[in-house]
Amino acid sequence: MNEFELIQHFFTRSACAQGGENISLGIGDDCALLQIPAGQSCAVSTDTLVSGIHFPDNAPAFLLGQRALAVAVSDLAAMGATPIGFTLAITLPQIDADWLQAFSAGLSAMALSCGIGLVGGDTTRGPLAIGVTVMGAVPPQQALLRSGAQVGDLLCVSGPLGAAAAAVPLVLGQVDEHSMTGDTAEQLLAAYWSPQPQLKLGQYLLGQASAALDISDGLLADCGHIAKASHVCLQIQQAQVPVAEAALQLLGESAALQCALSGGDDYQLAFTIAASAVAQLQQHFPSVQVIGQVISGTGVQVVDNNGQPIQQPHRGYQHFE
Amino acid sequence: MNEFELIQHFFTRSACAQGGENISLGIGDDCALLQIPAGQSCAVSTDTLVSGIHFPDNAPAFLLGQRALAVAVSDLAAMGATPIGFTLAITLPQIDADWLQAFSAGLSAMALSCGIGLVGGDTTRGPLAIGVTVMGAVPPQQALLRSGAQVGDLLCVSGPLGAAAAAVPLVLGQVDEHSMTGDTAEQLLAAYWSPQPQLKLGQYLLGQASAALDISDGLLADCGHIAKASHVCLQIQQAQVPVAEAALQLLGESAALQCALSGGDDYQLAFTIAASAVAQLQQHFPSVQVIGQVISGTGVQVVDNNGQPIQQPHRGYQHFE
Repeated sequence: MNEFELIQHFFTRSACAQGGENISLGIGDDCALLQIPAGQSCAVSTDTLVSGIHFPDNAPAFLLGQRALAVAVSDLAAMGATPIGFTLAITLPQIDADWLQAFSAGLSAMALSCGIGLVGGDTTRGPLAIGVTVMGAVPPQQALLRSGAQVGDLLCVSGPLGAAAAAVPLVLGQVDEHSMTGDTAEQLLAAYWSPQPQLKLGQYLLGQASAALDISDGLLADCGHIAKASHVCLQIQQAQVPVAEAALQLLGESAALQCALSGGDDYQLAFTIAASAVAQLQQHFPSVQVIGQVISGTGVQVVDNNGQPIQQPHRGYQHFE
Repeated sequence: MNEFELIQHFFTRSACAQGGENISLGIGDDCALLQIPAGQSCAVSTDTLVSGIHFPDNAPAFLLGQRALAVAVSDLAAMGATPIGFTLAITLPQIDADWLQAFSAGLSAMALSCGIGLVGGDTTRGPLAIGVTVMGAVPPQQALLRSGAQVGDLLCVSGPLGAAAAAVPLVLGQVDEHSMTGDTAEQLLAAYWSPQPQLKLGQYLLGQASAALDISDGLLADCGHIAKASHVCLQIQQAQVPVAEAALQLLGESAALQCALSGGDDYQLAFTIAASAVAQLQQHFPSVQVIGQVISGTGVQVVDNNGQPIQQPHRGYQHFE
């Protein structure tokens, strides 16, 4: 089976390539054509996942397909954009029909849940790597940037943090999932492999949040990005940071908190918003939690209940090695 | 220098990241925002080049930057689209400042000549690979598809073919360029490393050509794509195929013709168009040449001056190995 037949068989006919109302031309020509609704802009983002760096070499293909797309679509959520289409650049060490079938099924499952269609791509030989470029539509004046946080705004996150980072020993097979009680292992693995892009929340926040992004590098590092782009300081009350229950069960309070603050891959949204808008927001999205505020200054400050700064051991995303 | 600083230093500040009139938000947020003019669609295409497969491991960084972008923008030309922005997903074995500087300069040179801006991307560690996704704007009803060729149309190419394929022994260092007379080596290497996307021609052909694509896999294979999508036969008069002069000088008539028919990487356009439109077209684009016609049937047929079929030894793109 040559390169062209491979692409056609596994992707062109996959469920995720069945298009959507804003895809006027899908896979099979020199370009795909996407309709951007009048008055809106095309939002674009690219993510690449490399085997052995962003996921273990023996990652299950279905889960990898889900995750590769979710990670990319999460950037659309963070802008408040509505997904339209994505391209897939996949580098494969060999042609393995079973692997491709499972990967394509995982990709299709996530595509369906996000309302996005596969519109093109490229298959090459080499060490396993997956590049996804997503495109969506957003009203440009309301798009959620990193640069609009205002002193006095509150800082919120969309849900519990730390489960994906806590899952890493399980993902690597260093911990036996059967040794865990209840559904802890299941919850942790789901957080890692099937993050849910916060599309509805992102779209709700259009014209409301003053700044937003998705938490991929870790809460502290990502809040640092907002602080830098907005020329403000984000002050986080450590006791208000929602820590995922499964992470607490596996690791205990201290280590789970570290996962929530510095672990990556949560794909929840962090955003700043006027205090007056929070009550109504939480009626629609009960898992949204206020974790701090925007003050003048620079960088990110973590404080205890008395407002005293707490030193953090380290920050930011560590590659999966 | 960590991953973030790397990206910022070499790409965010590069000439190709200086934006354009339709880029309302460039690098640095979760997504970039592109303005698609009213009534137009967003055209999207992705290409990945892998070291050792699509180019030799020791490829000069500047030339590689030029070529990686040209190959992708050529797909916009083939739709008649106007370039707006591109994302770059680059996988690097190590951080080499000199290499990145040269690559970025080559990328910027091609971006400037194509009027396209770098709007985002991703840098990962691994074996060298370059993924480019290009976005542009095109009126959807006039976009140049592969599927519209009509029996009776003429088949044209935008210029001489075969030089890029003939350049491969030079690119691989199997032939010493100093052994060649005149500027043959220079012309061949330019054809391979700096193909010029046929943007002006593609835009001129909007609403005129019935089908079009760019020749990346080789003339015969690519004409086969039009034939299949349009449910017609493309008949090529072998004597009318324009063979690049430098390929003729290096290889002689027979081998140069094979490069023109079956070698890849030319990035000229092949298109079908009503006979009545050709004279005016050639006034604007003198290098356009009629090489055949659309007849009923399937596939691609190469014929001699008496209309007798000529068997071809092989077809299609061979990976660079």
